[in-house]
Amino acid sequence: MKLKRYDKESDYSYTVGLYPTIELLKAKPELVLRVITHSQFSSVEGLKQIQSHAERSGFPYEENDRLIDKLCPKRDCLVIGVFKKYVSRLEPAGNHVVLVNPSNAGNLGTVMRSMLAFDFHDLAVLEPATDLFSPSTIRSSMGALFGIRFEHYGDIGEYRVKHATHRLYPFMTTGKSELDRTTFAEPYSLVFGNESSGLPDDYERIGESVRIAQSDKVDSLNLAITTGIALHHLYRSRHAEVKDPRHLPQA
Amino acid sequence: MKLKRYDKESDYSYTVGLYPTIELLKAKPELVLRVITHSQFSSVEGLKQIQSHAERSGFPYEENDRLIDKLCPKRDCLVIGVFKKYVSRLEPAGNHVVLVNPSNAGNLGTVMRSMLAFDFHDLAVLEPATDLFSPSTIRSSMGALFGIRFEHYGDIGEYRVKHATHRLYPFMTTGKSELDRTTFAEPYSLVFGNESSGLPDDYERIGESVRIAQSDKVDSLNLAITTGIALHHLYRSRHAEVKDPRHLPQA
Repeated sequence: MKLKRYDKESDYSYTVGLYPTIELLKAKPELVLRVITHSQFSSVEGLKQIQSHAERSGFPYEENDRLIDKLCPKRDCLVIGVFKKYVSRLEPAGNHVVLVNPSNAGNLGTVMRSMLAFDFHDLAVLEPATDLFSPSTIRSSMGALFGIRFEHYGDIGEYRVKHATHRLYPFMTTGKSELDRTTFAEPYSLVFGNESSGLPDDYERIGESVRIAQSDKVDSLNLAITTGIALHHLYRSRHAEVKDPRHLPQA
Repeated sequence: MKLKRYDKESDYSYTVGLYPTIELLKAKPELVLRVITHSQFSSVEGLKQIQSHAERSGFPYEENDRLIDKLCPKRDCLVIGVFKKYVSRLEPAGNHVVLVNPSNAGNLGTVMRSMLAFDFHDLAVLEPATDLFSPSTIRSSMGALFGIRFEHYGDIGEYRVKHATHRLYPFMTTGKSELDRTTFAEPYSLVFGNESSGLPDDYERIGESVRIAQSDKVDSLNLAITTGIALHHLYRSRHAEVKDPRHLPQA
């Protein structure tokens, strides 16, 4: 198999860097096609981990500077994990993050990293959208892609038909209630708009719109920041409930 | 003056895109050297704003496709504002954000955008650091650079000597108290580490270390996300105080 630089149509992609590669090996060993290291890769611990995964899962690994330089034209990577792309399905009963037409790989990856940090495991992406499997998305996600479920939908209508019992909470700068004064009824879908255009006005009507308090000195927050603040808030709320003695099992 | 593609040593830089350019014209009109538009730039409202600023502030503006393509090699911009770099000083009595060796332009810009959104106006940057004035930093900031004060320091020691009354709150995954259980005594400095390495362990001792609650499924949060969550939390705390009737002036 001759590896080429990534393009959206290919049926494999790759992780760049040790951390995302190890996440791949841990979460999806059956999909790993091979691991390539550069001769300048000097992490003894990293090499040991790759070797031990390779022995367990039976994928080949090799040192190949030329191939790394070809796949990674900025020459800023020393480890690459090649894997077969795969299909994933949302957990119907889970709380979902819904991204409407995300256009930036860095934001998309960062959202996935925050999801895993705050125990959200289901990501719906409405097309058109930037490629979930691109090496730059995976790099920004620090490998969190392999720890969550995801699914693509043509539009919000298609999403709603498939998840009819979910309550929708669109995040808008004109949202009706502030994040920390909103009650989120499970299972819920947190809906975030595109980086430049946000959510169209008619998203007001699909559920209870939420806003994040902010000064009037900026137009809006960065998409990944909005998402991060929302997910952290909900993680803390769940956490606080568990710690509330009324919710603990009786002795 | 013959304009060249940006490099760190030049004494001018430029904004790319309408939104950051307008922020520049509003905040720092005296530093604008010129504005250049592309013939495909079609925002009538945008052109009107540029014209009106140009008349008031006396900088030249012109349509020049060749120059735009030269300065903006990805060919994804239609407006550029060229400005003279400037020196800025922190407000000694303000609450500060301190970034230790930030290395990514996108993160640095996003932090500035969040600062302005949550009413933080003073950014200390410890060297070595990515360039505050690079067009990609300014683009990620959406022009927020022009709305805040900033200052560079060689290390945390130099910063502390200059701001001896500030209480330091280093953000660390091993932090002693959780963000929403921490009392922040003003004036304070929120200290955030580098993207890959975080803060060295000895930062524990410079103040009260803070952690952001998160699952054990990720190593850490993205720097701009950590900062965004912290700044939003403090903005909400200040806000809540103002809304508390005990803090309102008596009738």
